[in-house]
Amino acid sequence: MWYRRSRVRIPSIAPFYSSVPTEWLYSQRMTDARDTGLTLNPKYDETGLITAVVTDADGGDVLMVAHMNAQALGLTVETGFAHFWSRSRNALWKKGETSGHMLAVRDIRIDCDQDAVWVKAVPAGPTCHTGARSCFFRRVGTDGLTRVDAAD
Amino acid sequence: MWYRRSRVRIPSIAPFYSSVPTEWLYSQRMTDARDTGLTLNPKYDETGLITAVVTDADGGDVLMVAHMNAQALGLTVETGFAHFWSRSRNALWKKGETSGHMLAVRDIRIDCDQDAVWVKAVPAGPTCHTGARSCFFRRVGTDGLTRVDAAD
Repeated sequence: MWYRRSRVRIPSIAPFYSSVPTEWLYSQRMTDARDTGLTLNPKYDETGLITAVVTDADGGDVLMVAHMNAQALGLTVETGFAHFWSRSRNALWKKGETSGHMLAVRDIRIDCDQDAVWVKAVPAGPTCHTGARSCFFRRVGTDGLTRVDAAD
Repeated sequence: MWYRRSRVRIPSIAPFYSSVPTEWLYSQRMTDARDTGLTLNPKYDETGLITAVVTDADGGDVLMVAHMNAQALGLTVETGFAHFWSRSRNALWKKGETSGHMLAVRDIRIDCDQDAVWVKAVPAGPTCHTGARSCFFRRVGTDGLTRVDAAD
């Protein structure tokens, strides 16, 4: 075996690892090529999906949170219009295909562990199926929910 | 049976429903008390989690996406500091507990189907474990990823 011919002693890394905090090891383990590299390598969950957050390119409000599979992500990048995977309908979903309230994409970002994308978009109308501009039209407080405008 | 005593004919709704688009029925079905009411009733997934999106209260950039269980959501509301459930560590996680980079909550919203919350927060330091201000420091394009500042 090659290392028997070497005169260089290779010390065990075990004593080193045992001297650092668990959180540090965890952080180091997580910082891999997927976390910091420039290769798109989405970490799809066991159902083939990543999370997609859409914000209003004008103002930054969160408009909706949905999911994308590889096809939806590819179509979003290629067409410039947000596509998702509908878990309830089990189907590809071009946002606004029936309502006309499409989301014109201005920017797409992916997070460190590549299991979520952030889409900045210009909405053609209300994003929420309830008719609200944003799906996040209720504030959570210690006394429950209160209705607010997304711009509040 | 009571309706046999009634002289009012109650027409079947089947012909009505068959005349409207499937998308419309879907939309109506989804608009229930959870979607529009003022009762906090999170729709936790089969592992007891909802999605949590954190944006920077100053500027609106998305800083991170994580998950909350009922305890994490409750602690976030009560303490004013963001708490999550770490799926990799299978443990409650007060963001910044070891790094000091806590997220001071300014607002919490919940979306229509109550399976996602939007937390506006003031970060005490870099939010990402890589040291980046935001976890979303890479742009997705047709040629792969490019590194950008979150503020770009």
